[in-house]
Amino acid sequence: MPSENDTRDLLCRLLQAFYGRNWVSGTGGGICALNDEGHMLLAPTGVHKELVQPDHFFTIDVRDGSVVRPPKDETLRPSECNSIFRAAIVERGAGSVMHSHALSSVLAADLAEDRDHIAIKDLEMLKGIRGVTNRDVHVLPVITNTPREFELTDQVEAALKDERYAAACAILVRDHGAYIWGADPMEVKRHAEVYHFLFEATVARARS
Amino acid sequence: MPSENDTRDLLCRLLQAFYGRNWVSGTGGGICALNDEGHMLLAPTGVHKELVQPDHFFTIDVRDGSVVRPPKDETLRPSECNSIFRAAIVERGAGSVMHSHALSSVLAADLAEDRDHIAIKDLEMLKGIRGVTNRDVHVLPVITNTPREFELTDQVEAALKDERYAAACAILVRDHGAYIWGADPMEVKRHAEVYHFLFEATVARARS
Amino acid sequence: MPSENDTRDLLCRLLQAFYGRNWVSGTGGGICALNDEGHMLLAPTGVHKELVQPDHFFTIDVRDGSVVRPPKDETLRPSECNSIFRAAIVERGAGSVMHSHALSSVLAADLAEDRDHIAIKDLEMLKGIRGVTNRDVHVLPVITNTPREFELTDQVEAALKDERYAAACAILVRDHGAYIWGADPMEVKRHAEVYHFLFEATVARARS
Amino acid sequence: MPSENDTRDLLCRLLQAFYGRNWVSGTGGGICALNDEGHMLLAPTGVHKELVQPDHFFTIDVRDGSVVRPPKDETLRPSECNSIFRAAIVERGAGSVMHSHALSSVLAADLAEDRDHIAIKDLEMLKGIRGVTNRDVHVLPVITNTPREFELTDQVEAALKDERYAAACAILVRDHGAYIWGADPMEVKRHAEVYHFLFEATVARARS
Repeated sequence: MPSENDTRDLLCRLLQAFYGRNWVSGTGGGICALNDEGHMLLAPTGVHKELVQPDHFFTIDVRDGSVVRPPKDETLRPSECNSIFRAAIVERGAGSVMHSHALSSVLAADLAEDRDHIAIKDLEMLKGIRGVTNRDVHVLPVITNTPREFELTDQVEAALKDERYAAACAILVRDHGAYIWGADPMEVKRHAEVYHFLFEATVARARS
Repeated sequence: MPSENDTRDLLCRLLQAFYGRNWVSGTGGGICALNDEGHMLLAPTGVHKELVQPDHFFTIDVRDGSVVRPPKDETLRPSECNSIFRAAIVERGAGSVMHSHALSSVLAADLAEDRDHIAIKDLEMLKGIRGVTNRDVHVLPVITNTPREFELTDQVEAALKDERYAAACAILVRDHGAYIWGADPMEVKRHAEVYHFLFEATVARARS
Repeated sequence: MPSENDTRDLLCRLLQAFYGRNWVSGTGGGICALNDEGHMLLAPTGVHKELVQPDHFFTIDVRDGSVVRPPKDETLRPSECNSIFRAAIVERGAGSVMHSHALSSVLAADLAEDRDHIAIKDLEMLKGIRGVTNRDVHVLPVITNTPREFELTDQVEAALKDERYAAACAILVRDHGAYIWGADPMEVKRHAEVYHFLFEATVARARS
Repeated sequence: MPSENDTRDLLCRLLQAFYGRNWVSGTGGGICALNDEGHMLLAPTGVHKELVQPDHFFTIDVRDGSVVRPPKDETLRPSECNSIFRAAIVERGAGSVMHSHALSSVLAADLAEDRDHIAIKDLEMLKGIRGVTNRDVHVLPVITNTPREFELTDQVEAALKDERYAAACAILVRDHGAYIWGADPMEVKRHAEVYHFLFEATVARARS
């Protein structure tokens, strides 16, 4: 288990990398990871994500979402992803979750039209998702956006429990983006790179 | 209120970031911000925007556009955005404005066809604009390009006063680009990232 | 002949450059090169390719694929590209091979539809492939993906021996990516840049 | 007039910037500039353009293309752009010329179909070309590719003398790329950024 300082540093570097790919621009998106006490380190809301510093994270109790330790900077507020991130931790055993506002995730969700899911197939990169093979038809839930982010929690929890999506490590939110999780921040990095590739490929093929 | 030196440094860093995104290439585009005296710091015209240095800005009287202090480099001339930037400051209380030549802004303006506006909707990123929600239909004015940039001022002022665009923090110029404003340079950074995302998403959806 | 240390350094820098172009994201893709003993330096599998360090390579006997020297880090496993890379070395005299997971390579392979090849023509950049002119119709084999990467070896070997593809320095794998080889790592860099350009151009023209 | 050393440094930095935009990848493309003696500094051929060093340039007599001073590295050969670059210098008074292999330049040339030119209009960025206004219909010659680059020279010279193209600071080569010139390397930088924007915009609009 890496030290909490290393985890905080890594989360900042990942936010910078995600920003460089245009997945968390305009202060959108977010990230979290469990620390070595089993608490959730949660990035603040409403800030430029590439400028988040290691001491900007909230320490959150995973059971109830309460703030165990706030950052020293009292102007910061915890991300609205709080309850959604905790749902992925509790329901799926995730150790880290990222939230993307990538254009490719919005366009991939558009492909669902009036269905509640999209199917991704015929792509080697599927093997980059834990437990998935390149022969699988990988089905991702597509939920409906809400005025406030925490209002997505019920739909997220239902999707996490839905057996159709047992292999999914991501949930698409229509008009909004995606939540992508993994065992730890580096698996989230891999899953985020793979899922965004899958979104881009599936959108490009749908337009060919 | 940050010091004037910090504001000048920040404006240069933002121009470099905007250049890296291809929003101010080929010497196009521009930026300004109010200093701690209430004057406008205005980037020069006709220069490579990513090479603008902190001592290259003109200090402009917001009331009449006159030059209070020119930069030492006497070869520099103030941006033609002068009167447009001041209009956004006076009419909307902006503390900073950027001017984009991004391809996505040109293609978004094309979507207006013979109308004088475009409507952006069904996108979470709308929440990145001050006061806007993801349920809003966000209407942006689209004005007609002119031979000289200052000749846009009348159309800009009319759009700024038009109640249909009360929520807009941007104006699109057909065949040209966009003006995007905010309370200060960091809000302009957020608004610029959000609006360019909205332009790209709206153009991509129109082509699907 | 460069020293083995220089070759290891160069392979790492190339992986970083390829990652920056989104050709080896999500731990996908790979690279190898012959060292000054005629053994193959092979990158590990399942790791973030831009983070590969010079001491992470396996030294492989080209004749049988056995590991002559593993890296010190015992958690590393050799790339599944082993037998495919060796086939390009043996059949074509390659001194280095890269494996791309670029979206453009997947979309270029899609153009084959039910054929076993694609033809690239009318592009000056063809001259960037050793021995190819801009008047050539450059034919690349397109093979069918398999559940495990080493299972591609038979198809790869057949394509390498097929006279129709004598001028090819690349093989496309449907739904997967491409293998691209050259005399040494710098020729692989040139070939990779050229082939990805050719893929992008051919896909863009097919969609116009 | 900058010193020759400064010009050599600047040409290397421009090649790196052009490489970063994918205009001179795969060893393609090139650049030249006049030095303070009125000779042409010409980049070598067949090398990775982002790796060109200040002492890699050939000094060329503009009148006849002969090598006044070769670089110390005897493995280098002068660019095949030699006679084309000199034509732009002689016919148009250019002080610097770049050669692009950008995909956008190939796709823009495709728009000519069976005509010998393309017309670019209704774009503010036209003002970034010396002497051009945003009301102009800017006509660029599109010439036909040849097996060897120097074989383009006759077509280039004819286009440079053609009154239809008096305002052009660029020539498109079908299936190949573009030559873009200006008074000095920084004007070539501006013209290159502007013309590639114009190519991208015109191609995007043609596909809408």
